Amino acid sequence: MIAADGGLGIVATQRAVLTENGPLVLASGAQLPHVEVAYETYGALSPSRDNAVFVCHALTGDAHAAGWHEGARRPGWWDNLIGPGRAVDTDRYFVIAANLLGGCSGTTGPLSIDPATGRPYGADFPALDMADFVSAHRGLLDHLGVDRLHAAVGGSLGGMQVLEWALQEPDRIDRAVLVAASSRLTTENIAFSAVARAAILEDPDFRDGRYFEHGVTPRHGLKVARMMAHITYVSELSLAEKFGHRRDTAGHDKRLAADFEVEHYLQHQGESFLDRFDALSYLHLTRPMDYFDPFGAHQGVVPSTRFELISFDTDWRFPTAHSVRIRDQLAARGAAVEHAELTSPWGHDSFLLEPDGYHDRVRAFLS
Amino acid sequence: MIAADGGLGIVATQRAVLTENGPLVLASGAQLPHVEVAYETYGALSPSRDNAVFVCHALTGDAHAAGWHEGARRPGWWDNLIGPGRAVDTDRYFVIAANLLGGCSGTTGPLSIDPATGRPYGADFPALDMADFVSAHRGLLDHLGVDRLHAAVGGSLGGMQVLEWALQEPDRIDRAVLVAASSRLTTENIAFSAVARAAILEDPDFRDGRYFEHGVTPRHGLKVARMMAHITYVSELSLAEKFGHRRDTAGHDKRLAADFEVEHYLQHQGESFLDRFDALSYLHLTRPMDYFDPFGAHQGVVPSTRFELISFDTDWRFPTAHSVRIRDQLAARGAAVEHAELTSPWGHDSFLLEPDGYHDRVRAFLS
Repeated sequence: MIAADGGLGIVATQRAVLTENGPLVLASGAQLPHVEVAYETYGALSPSRDNAVFVCHALTGDAHAAGWHEGARRPGWWDNLIGPGRAVDTDRYFVIAANLLGGCSGTTGPLSIDPATGRPYGADFPALDMADFVSAHRGLLDHLGVDRLHAAVGGSLGGMQVLEWALQEPDRIDRAVLVAASSRLTTENIAFSAVARAAILEDPDFRDGRYFEHGVTPRHGLKVARMMAHITYVSELSLAEKFGHRRDTAGHDKRLAADFEVEHYLQHQGESFLDRFDALSYLHLTRPMDYFDPFGAHQGVVPSTRFELISFDTDWRFPTAHSVRIRDQLAARGAAVEHAELTSPWGHDSFLLEPDGYHDRVRAFLS
Repeated sequence: MIAADGGLGIVATQRAVLTENGPLVLASGAQLPHVEVAYETYGALSPSRDNAVFVCHALTGDAHAAGWHEGARRPGWWDNLIGPGRAVDTDRYFVIAANLLGGCSGTTGPLSIDPATGRPYGADFPALDMADFVSAHRGLLDHLGVDRLHAAVGGSLGGMQVLEWALQEPDRIDRAVLVAASSRLTTENIAFSAVARAAILEDPDFRDGRYFEHGVTPRHGLKVARMMAHITYVSELSLAEKFGHRRDTAGHDKRLAADFEVEHYLQHQGESFLDRFDALSYLHLTRPMDYFDPFGAHQGVVPSTRFELISFDTDWRFPTAHSVRIRDQLAARGAAVEHAELTSPWGHDSFLLEPDGYHDRVRAFLS
């Protein structure tokens, strides 16, 4: 079906239970007795089951990568990339997108019920590892009866999952696309992440992670965390071009509260995030990035996967040096890897947009 | 007197009342009926009163720029620069340092008593302008009977005061030293500032700026603001070299709470800040930076002051482009201005440290 906008039209999220044959065992050794995964699929699996493309989302994404939910005002978060005739062409590929383990958009996470207690896990939800995100993805593939992936594709944290997965199971993934990703955060990256988590963990309304039992949420901390993180997702240039120094007041009429347009914008980003994201999921999905170091963990692996790495010249969250490190580490292991730094004004968020050459590279690599 | 460390030895903070002949009128038109300024002086004013050097502090500094307070464990914040034989040589110069208007270290600020109500100003303290900081400095000079300055010297926000002052009163200041300063914040600078302020203003314990009446302080917001700001004061390189990826846990033993050394460090920075700084002062001293645009406000001024600008190659809070803008604006007005970008590993905080060539430049320029 081709929708009016040339995309997928109406799609819906489904759910799969992954633990019918036993608990999900995490990298830490902890077990989750019941795991559900929210997912969407687009296109059709070929009779030979060789055309599956798995899309991994970034920190605040979800299973709704493309198409439109009934009555929605905007399409899925990667709708510009995925659809009939698009770079990830649903006329050719069977595309799978899933909400991350630990998330808050349908997949089991900290606000899910712990079968052992009958109450939400809250702060007792086990700390996750990048490998655990992949374990849930793998469980979904098994559930769908897909053995091999034509490709795994992800941006930012999504690209980090793709890298972990390809190093775990190189024979299962033919092609890997990592956009604006990292194989090891810098100390500065961890520092920003630490401040965001401190904002949440030390919010008096966090209540040791049991806020939901008190009818509150750590709104203040989560909002501040999001506002700060948002700055790192965009470029200095794009903020300057979009907002400049425009403000509500003029001359000597000044105030402490929000006045500049960029302040109202960040306020809006922070506020609207509260409606769609949970504080505990924020903690559980950001933390595995700090610890991620797959080239340390998977010594001696020779990936048979072919890699395409893309970075953007204005990205200061994961600048090109991060992709260069991945390229060098993969090349040293004998993997087939290409890297391109693309020009884009939009910083880290470029992976969600359409800078020149980006979608064409993805399309060509998948073909 | 030469102390054991070659510096000034014991010094003490004094106070001056600036409003004996009438209120201090702010740029906004608001008036402060009673203003005291905390200040220190080092060295002796020459008989011809031509050797005064005014030192302007940055956001979280105070009047105690050099020497040691009785029983203190560390000297003043710019003790490496100021003292007998040092770059700002107290054997030659009469050095004056004062706590900023709106501050919380002895000068009248938001926690001072409003004579109109008999209670602390709190949120009713008037919004300040960079020009108001200068008005208080000027009042102190008058109080001390100093007509002209041999030099005004400042780093970061201190340099911004120096620039404002030199454009207001070019005939009063012979030399101006601006280190790691800015004449107009970028949109990104304002964005970081906005998040820091939001963390404080929206902390439930801020209580509309009357927290002190409730026996609380917006600890959470102020701590998060400081932690975030601190990241922007240091370089990616210095964080990486100082802390790397060292952490308390090992292997799969991971946690959400602080674990990496850089997290403990930021926690310490945030906590210790609470002991020495007030949340309302933080708001009132950061906000004037966002609005600062002296080349817009002082059109047509031809400064007779000679300017020395210094920036640092790893400073990403006020990168060299900020100093280049000041140089170009001053040069276009016909001012004598020199700018040097120095190599330093330490980012914005370099102005408080001793990167190669820095103190020598200041010394040579003052001579």
